[in-house]
Amino acid sequence: MRTGAAHDSLRVEFGARSYSILIGRGLLRDPATWADIPPATCAAVVTNETVSALYAEAVLSALTPLFRRTLVIALPDGEGHKDWSTLNTIFDRLLDAGCDRKSILIALGGGVVGDLTGFAAACFMRGIGFVQVPTTLLAQVDSSVGGKTGINHPRGKNMIGAFHQPLRVVADTDTLMSLPQRELVAGLAEVIKYGAIADDGFTTWLDTNLERLLKRDDEALRYAIRRSCEIKSGIIERDERESGIREILNFGHTFGHAIEAGLGFGKWLHGEAVGCGMVMAADLSRRLGRIASGDVDRLVSLVHRTGLPISVGSIGCETILDLMRGDKKARGGQIRFVVLESPGHAAVDSAPDDMVRDAVSAHIS
Amino acid sequence: MRTGAAHDSLRVEFGARSYSILIGRGLLRDPATWADIPPATCAAVVTNETVSALYAEAVLSALTPLFRRTLVIALPDGEGHKDWSTLNTIFDRLLDAGCDRKSILIALGGGVVGDLTGFAAACFMRGIGFVQVPTTLLAQVDSSVGGKTGINHPRGKNMIGAFHQPLRVVADTDTLMSLPQRELVAGLAEVIKYGAIADDGFTTWLDTNLERLLKRDDEALRYAIRRSCEIKSGIIERDERESGIREILNFGHTFGHAIEAGLGFGKWLHGEAVGCGMVMAADLSRRLGRIASGDVDRLVSLVHRTGLPISVGSIGCETILDLMRGDKKARGGQIRFVVLESPGHAAVDSAPDDMVRDAVSAHIS
Repeated sequence: MRTGAAHDSLRVEFGARSYSILIGRGLLRDPATWADIPPATCAAVVTNETVSALYAEAVLSALTPLFRRTLVIALPDGEGHKDWSTLNTIFDRLLDAGCDRKSILIALGGGVVGDLTGFAAACFMRGIGFVQVPTTLLAQVDSSVGGKTGINHPRGKNMIGAFHQPLRVVADTDTLMSLPQRELVAGLAEVIKYGAIADDGFTTWLDTNLERLLKRDDEALRYAIRRSCEIKSGIIERDERESGIREILNFGHTFGHAIEAGLGFGKWLHGEAVGCGMVMAADLSRRLGRIASGDVDRLVSLVHRTGLPISVGSIGCETILDLMRGDKKARGGQIRFVVLESPGHAAVDSAPDDMVRDAVSAHIS
Repeated sequence: MRTGAAHDSLRVEFGARSYSILIGRGLLRDPATWADIPPATCAAVVTNETVSALYAEAVLSALTPLFRRTLVIALPDGEGHKDWSTLNTIFDRLLDAGCDRKSILIALGGGVVGDLTGFAAACFMRGIGFVQVPTTLLAQVDSSVGGKTGINHPRGKNMIGAFHQPLRVVADTDTLMSLPQRELVAGLAEVIKYGAIADDGFTTWLDTNLERLLKRDDEALRYAIRRSCEIKSGIIERDERESGIREILNFGHTFGHAIEAGLGFGKWLHGEAVGCGMVMAADLSRRLGRIASGDVDRLVSLVHRTGLPISVGSIGCETILDLMRGDKKARGGQIRFVVLESPGHAAVDSAPDDMVRDAVSAHIS
């Protein structure tokens, strides 16, 4: 059916809510990408001002022949706008345009756009369908897959949200060519995470192919995205709502969120904080007697070669501990850590405060 | 297990999300009502200022031995507060109190409290459990059952929301004793609806027992609530997200919503508008050749004897038609009506504009 653009396709199984992840070049512009989206009277492309200028026209051209009404909603750019006010802008625009419950949303952008749009779709007239079109590496390998959507609250990130699976994920690797290098590197943090928690062979592949990824070789990127999505979807299929195994996807994130909050959100990119967080989490795993020093060194080296930070300055150890105690994944005040049992295998555990303190201190510069 | 309070119990089947509806006297205060709620670290009773003064203390006393932390969140009273600002008050209070994702909410009040609380539970940290404790007849027979939650938007009622099933529904008929008569009567509109769409025998029972219901005879109320919940849950079990059969629950509501909007929300109670809307919908069903004049007369008489309006003044026919075209249940501009195929049987259909105009005009005073 498809001609020209080479692409991979991956199926995420959620019974009646199963969906495909398409990965490859030229997908945005290809009519075949959109041909079998469920019928709707209105299709709204939700994006931000930056991405809109680059890709909204291409998506709109592909959608216009298929839907009675199409519109573009361009939001202000940045994590600071992932709030109720911006969400309400989406609702206002949809209602102004007369969109009804037979509408679909197309989330065109990075994680912020995907989270906002997915949550808007979850709530608009009690739920409509949406398609994820991630345009950053981070969104392609992580936030666009799995159905987590939401907005921030002054008291914390993603405090308000919903689990709402997309109808499809369209990861067009051409869009990565316009990505700043710092954001590409930040996206690789999550890719490294998948190897660490679920597939040591993938870590070996990353070790070997890191230069190709950093130079944006399409074949290498496509493989890394595909393998990342396979690992993530395999986990979320077993635990959609994070009541068990899904928690291991937070490897490096408990430390990482505390670093982000401690430095002030926006100073480091999420992926940068996760990179450093994985270093701390691997160190903690060693202190708990689960992995060897050599295993930690190998991960730290990969994180470092990627260009991600392996230590953090200007926050105290106790600040990080306090912030972790307030994380929404904490249960009754007890911090839960994702630790490595061996390279490629993760588990969730608690740890003595002193040991956590040592693991953090060792990576404060 | 339970002693003293006589009550009925009804099961709503949604697989792993199945739940019980308890109906009877003294349930609020009975520890057994709450004993097997799933474990949580924090239980927050969300209510309004009016209901809080009457029942919050009783519920809190029953909950305090069971949860590490309990709190009461009393919202301002009224449909005008069913908005984002009030919803955010719930989030703020929960986060201030340190409630985490292992919390549950208890919705103590009428439909507004239930819809707000249910939506807060659907969104707080991407979804926590909640218990419906409806204290109005309308909420006991309708809004507390079925998982529809949401808030209003300046452009329409319930535009933003989610389907989120409660963990349990606790309909304590003692709470109906404090209800103003006008609200009791409004609640009976939905009870009459269930007979009209699904059980002509129930309509006959209502005809015979109407005086007992209006005098708040507990046995009669309990039967009416139970039968209403049975009919509603039987329908929503087959169609949780209103993609088919569930639409028949909107009998009288397409006309009713237009009447509410046309008069200005709050002038008539929802149930009053539904009463008059059912009269128009029955009239339309007759004009479509589906039911006989005698069937219409019988329903109109029951609505009238209950004390509900059977005609509306001060809105024009065209205003009502225009408002119905903008309803969120309209599909691509086509108004969909729930009509009676025969007494106790409903279907969804469209109708010629002229016929709709006649059915409305006949009930404008």
